[in-house]
Amino acid sequence: PSWPQRASFCPPGMEARGGKCVSSACAPQAHPLIDAVRNAELAEYDRTVRERFDAIVPTLKEIAGLQHEAGFEQRAQQIAGERLGFTLPEAVLADAWITTLDMRALYGHSVLQTYHWLARDFTARWDGHAEAQAVERFFIECGFHEVDISSCADGRLKGLLQFVLRLPHQAVHRRKSYAGALFDVELNVKHWTETELRRFREGVPTTSDAGTRYLKIAVYHFSSSDPEHEGCAAHGSDDTRAAQAALDRLAAFRTAIENGFCCGASVATLLIGVDTDTDAIRVHVPDADGAMRTDCAVDNLAVYRQTAGMAASEARWRLDTAIDEAAREHGRSAPESGMRRLIERLLTNNLSQIDYVCAQHNGRYADIGHAERFINIGDGFDEVFLRNLAYFGHLHTIEEGAADMDVGVKILSGLYVARGLPIPIAIHHRYDAQVPGSRERAVARCRRVKSAIETRYPHVAKEGLFIAA
Amino acid sequence: PSWPQRASFCPPGMEARGGKCVSSACAPQAHPLIDAVRNAELAEYDRTVRERFDAIVPTLKEIAGLQHEAGFEQRAQQIAGERLGFTLPEAVLADAWITTLDMRALYGHSVLQTYHWLARDFTARWDGHAEAQAVERFFIECGFHEVDISSCADGRLKGLLQFVLRLPHQAVHRRKSYAGALFDVELNVKHWTETELRRFREGVPTTSDAGTRYLKIAVYHFSSSDPEHEGCAAHGSDDTRAAQAALDRLAAFRTAIENGFCCGASVATLLIGVDTDTDAIRVHVPDADGAMRTDCAVDNLAVYRQTAGMAASEARWRLDTAIDEAAREHGRSAPESGMRRLIERLLTNNLSQIDYVCAQHNGRYADIGHAERFINIGDGFDEVFLRNLAYFGHLHTIEEGAADMDVGVKILSGLYVARGLPIPIAIHHRYDAQVPGSRERAVARCRRVKSAIETRYPHVAKEGLFIAA
Ligand SMILES: [Zn+2]
Ligand SMILES: [Zn+2]
Ligand SMILES: [Zn+2]
Ligand SMILES: [Zn+2]
Repeated sequence: PSWPQRASFCPPGMEARGGKCVSSACAPQAHPLIDAVRNAELAEYDRTVRERFDAIVPTLKEIAGLQHEAGFEQRAQQIAGERLGFTLPEAVLADAWITTLDMRALYGHSVLQTYHWLARDFTARWDGHAEAQAVERFFIECGFHEVDISSCADGRLKGLLQFVLRLPHQAVHRRKSYAGALFDVELNVKHWTETELRRFREGVPTTSDAGTRYLKIAVYHFSSSDPEHEGCAAHGSDDTRAAQAALDRLAAFRTAIENGFCCGASVATLLIGVDTDTDAIRVHVPDADGAMRTDCAVDNLAVYRQTAGMAASEARWRLDTAIDEAAREHGRSAPESGMRRLIERLLTNNLSQIDYVCAQHNGRYADIGHAERFINIGDGFDEVFLRNLAYFGHLHTIEEGAADMDVGVKILSGLYVARGLPIPIAIHHRYDAQVPGSRERAVARCRRVKSAIETRYPHVAKEGLFIAA
Repeated sequence: PSWPQRASFCPPGMEARGGKCVSSACAPQAHPLIDAVRNAELAEYDRTVRERFDAIVPTLKEIAGLQHEAGFEQRAQQIAGERLGFTLPEAVLADAWITTLDMRALYGHSVLQTYHWLARDFTARWDGHAEAQAVERFFIECGFHEVDISSCADGRLKGLLQFVLRLPHQAVHRRKSYAGALFDVELNVKHWTETELRRFREGVPTTSDAGTRYLKIAVYHFSSSDPEHEGCAAHGSDDTRAAQAALDRLAAFRTAIENGFCCGASVATLLIGVDTDTDAIRVHVPDADGAMRTDCAVDNLAVYRQTAGMAASEARWRLDTAIDEAAREHGRSAPESGMRRLIERLLTNNLSQIDYVCAQHNGRYADIGHAERFINIGDGFDEVFLRNLAYFGHLHTIEEGAADMDVGVKILSGLYVARGLPIPIAIHHRYDAQVPGSRERAVARCRRVKSAIETRYPHVAKEGLFIAA
């Protein structure tokens, strides 16, 4: 592949086979509870996206080789159109004769064009509205009228919804990423307020007396193969610290709602860890009062291994029991029935993904480390859900989002700047067509963030920064 | 006075008397509708605050004259304590012998200490809670469950609530200032949402079926004496442009609510202009549908002049009539009865302030131009309400608030940096003691803004920047 590779080693539980690490616990497509059809669709999608990105470097190399030939510009555009699906900037091609072809400009352009193509393709490919409605109904049956997920900005979590949790993104209206999953409590209180007002004014999605709650899920991550190096960069690759920090943020949000609003206002919270090597999740089981601990969790990779050979009903029972066992082991009460049902669903969904990684990646990704292609920042850039595609952070200003951006720039500098490539950065801001001037303000915000990036990271900017507003 | 003075001239309607400009239309304390007791209290308060600030320069000059004498540090602290009410930083005094006393550091320290003293004094002096409750009830009777005022960040409007409109600040929960009164529509939608949710959840201040509305008031400003130079800097001192820009922002906010929320959601809006030379207001009268025009307004200085000699009941009738006349003159319908009542109250309140400026300032401020003592930015710094005390802007980041900050730095650079003095800058951010970590995040935000200022305005920072978090 064209993206950087980390020197491979075989951790415990894996064995070297044909130069690759293969999980000894991995029996692909053998598990009774997986969605094989969806796994095949996802594999095809994953392959398409990676091929698109992987075509960039060889295509540009070939074009570079032609730059001194006659009819270069036409040839270059023809090759780009055929292999990459878009044209290259005329001005860059036309200026090649002056010194040499500006490959860095072409590379940045190509990455962002590919990204835009994928975003359009994604929308066309996954029309998940019917599925999303079913999932929303399921959430409400579990007692949650809104499910809000904040994960780490780490690109290895970019497949969280589509792949790891198998939730249609349209069913999770609030999803924002922050370095270390350290989401913004005040902003979350704002979202809670908006959701509740809608319930009171419009009775959507549930009426105010329905007894349902807003559920906030925080997602941290770790690396089972190389825990000391490939865990969460924002927490020094310390799993317990990453989990505890996310747990503290969840508690702060819950307290903010309970203290800031009267009349029994509260929210539900849930903590999930993702092993970015295998995409297996670890769900921290809340007790009957909603309290969680970093050490009380269901390890879904263990569940997968235990249940792989069973009949479906037996596997379902086993998974169910795992939740009780996690609670009992720590002398804690079992979760509320709605929360418990949700956890069962998430664990079951994730079994498909564990199986997918078994089938497609021999049970462990080859790129267990960072291999993001670009940085995606701003607000609303959900069109492409794919692991390690982009480092993505929710931010409105570099001044406030500096912590998130610093981590991203550091990671991608290691990947690209060292090889002489620029870091493509896409800046997105949503606007509301119903609010006058919203679009203009979003464009102005993108421009402002762009110039703030150029100020804060002058070396990156000089190295060739590309922005898509 | 120790603050900079603009070369004076006598505009039309004023006459030179004893080196000062005196308004020929000014008959102080003669108006039948004014609150003479409050005027006396305000005059005393105004005098106290100005004396405090005016004492700084002569006191520091005296201290500077002693720096080579024996026992300097003790003497200096004694003088500062007696005249200024606080001590000076030990380290600055102790280092005087090295080269010379750092007067710029002492000046910045003194301005901010004085400001903090005043903030404490203000809270002790004006316990307006009972008055505020009465005003809130009055607003609700007029049909407004929340009154939200955004004015220009210009320091000449810092007395807007306490002096110009005579509204207790506790009755106006939302008050934020922006250069040119260009308030943040998205943030305002957030405030509207919070207010509405509280009504739905708690029935406070009115229940959701009360039929009351959220009222947003925008306040622009102009200079009757020197309209081309002393109007709003953010709009090139063009009154019509300033009024139109505020009107557009109000319309955008109303549309955002009407389009963004269903079921007949709407807000009321009102546009007010302030003549910063006289503190007289101009109220733009909405028609029955709430629409306003920049040229359809009641000029309260004219009302003052017309009604000064009348009996109270006659003056009241005349003021009332002025509202109808403004509408009729432009062939427009009269405002709704609640809006009309509110306008009557605001005009009447402002008559006291026009009279106050007559009595205390001969009908026109000597400092018609800028004379702010410091810049106050952030969130929540309402403790001191006094004209020309501070340039004040609502901002969370310099990146987003650069437009506001640029205007402030430009104004105060002209006033102070040219004279070799630093620009004192106070950064405030509110926190909610009930939200865990809120205080820490507010402190971090202040520090972040401080360092952003140092980056954006390196010359200002080098010239001696002082921050109070
Ligand atoms: Zn992370
Ligand atoms: Zn956002
Ligand atoms: Zn202004
Ligand atoms: Zn604020």
